[in-house]
Amino acid sequence: MKQLLNTFENYLKDNLPQSKTFHPHFEEALGLMLDAGGKRFRPMLLLSVVKSKKSLLLANSLDVALGLEMLHTYSLVHDDLPAMDNSDLRRGFKTLHKKFDEVTAILVGDALNTESFNKIANASLHNDVKIELIKTLSADGGIDGMIIGQAIDCFFENQKLELSQLEFLHIHKTAKLIAASLKMGAIIAEYDDITKKNLYDFGIDLGLLFQIQDDIIDETKSEEEAGKTTSNDSNKNSFVNLLGLKGAIDSANELAKKCELSLDSFEETLSKNLKELLSEYLYRHTL
Amino acid sequence: MKQLLNTFENYLKDNLPQSKTFHPHFEEALGLMLDAGGKRFRPMLLLSVVKSKKSLLLANSLDVALGLEMLHTYSLVHDDLPAMDNSDLRRGFKTLHKKFDEVTAILVGDALNTESFNKIANASLHNDVKIELIKTLSADGGIDGMIIGQAIDCFFENQKLELSQLEFLHIHKTAKLIAASLKMGAIIAEYDDITKKNLYDFGIDLGLLFQIQDDIIDETKSEEEAGKTTSNDSNKNSFVNLLGLKGAIDSANELAKKCELSLDSFEETLSKNLKELLSEYLYRHTL
Repeated sequence: MKQLLNTFENYLKDNLPQSKTFHPHFEEALGLMLDAGGKRFRPMLLLSVVKSKKSLLLANSLDVALGLEMLHTYSLVHDDLPAMDNSDLRRGFKTLHKKFDEVTAILVGDALNTESFNKIANASLHNDVKIELIKTLSADGGIDGMIIGQAIDCFFENQKLELSQLEFLHIHKTAKLIAASLKMGAIIAEYDDITKKNLYDFGIDLGLLFQIQDDIIDETKSEEEAGKTTSNDSNKNSFVNLLGLKGAIDSANELAKKCELSLDSFEETLSKNLKELLSEYLYRHTL
Repeated sequence: MKQLLNTFENYLKDNLPQSKTFHPHFEEALGLMLDAGGKRFRPMLLLSVVKSKKSLLLANSLDVALGLEMLHTYSLVHDDLPAMDNSDLRRGFKTLHKKFDEVTAILVGDALNTESFNKIANASLHNDVKIELIKTLSADGGIDGMIIGQAIDCFFENQKLELSQLEFLHIHKTAKLIAASLKMGAIIAEYDDITKKNLYDFGIDLGLLFQIQDDIIDETKSEEEAGKTTSNDSNKNSFVNLLGLKGAIDSANELAKKCELSLDSFEETLSKNLKELLSEYLYRHTL
């Protein structure tokens, strides 16, 4: 998996979006957050699935993996904007609106969103495959996916959500793009429809598990750091606040078991590759 | 052409993006600027070209025309943001960040950008055709098209551009999406590659002509309204300021002649349909 990650990182560095014009900083801004690192979790999910069945197609899948990372990166750039999280740092670097200006951050986000579909459309894959990939990414990364999740997250920042609403939020904001990454790998590798659906459903569970685990880690940390637990924390929409710490841990354990069962149900190579990948990404999510 | 416009308007109203969730206003916001009107110039260019050769494909082209209008509309929503033009009104309605909030305007723009590719990917057309359409829209509406044009327009708002730079700005910001609209019609109608290229080049000339004419109208208006000509106007990057009023009119006349020659060079039905369409849209651009 390390080798696959290196291959992707090198491909990304060689294929940063170009824009050679007299604009003094737009090209630099376009590539900055893509090049800044990040875990590359979504492209690696996609590539791991492809590798499990059609490793000969790995090279042709790099453009799709890059498109996926571009869509994810645009969402981070826009989430960091002053009107949303107003963040100063991202992936260890100044955010784009801090380093340059807000116009640049808005337009770089817009550009990466559009470019993600350009990358897929120009990949060396069959047109039928590419259309399925674009349908999936534009659905799970769009109105009925990531975007409505983010809209709900922002709107209800200071209002209590019910459990089903909080699950809806995180399934849409995060889990759907993780699920789409797995499904897109399965589309390229031409897995059967049942495997595609099972991978997608597994991705939803996995995305939700990550979020519950994050909420638990947040709570545990703030308890360790005595005096840091504030009333703000208990007003935050989190699984710990809705279920209690024990309830959240039970819920996470249940989902983790479900994820393990799913992993075991996949065919041998797919199961092995995904387990290997997840073992490297789960370190920050262990309870 | 009136009938075709009605068909498109009805289709748009029946297919506004849906998002039925517990978010109190996101669905309304998604459709508001699409439904608010506008000239529908880009979808009408596309449909007019399709009608000229493959009128049986008109119904199947409506999703593509809608996707094109969504991409154009997202660019208006983001251009209106406080960090860019900070506009209060658009198409006669309050802008989204004024009616709701900035988060909503950013996310609705993002959603319409992504959704435009979803619409095309799901259109009832051959996958080979849809991939060509997505390549074109994501190129001319993306980094090397509309977006770098907007980035340059914002960055150089208070700095003088040279003539070649001002042309570059407007070709990218406006003309490329107009050219893409014509080309996308030609892709659906399966015109030969030479006609595709000629339509595209004609669109670039047409977009540039519109801009020069707009600059001339601005200048003429401000002269009529005595006392309204300010030093701001002469600092603005406009063709009139770079070429003088007479120079700009000469330049517009030259481009208009070139456009007429192009129109005459197209096959009979295509030429007739585009002339009919343009006669309805050019009223605000007559000198």
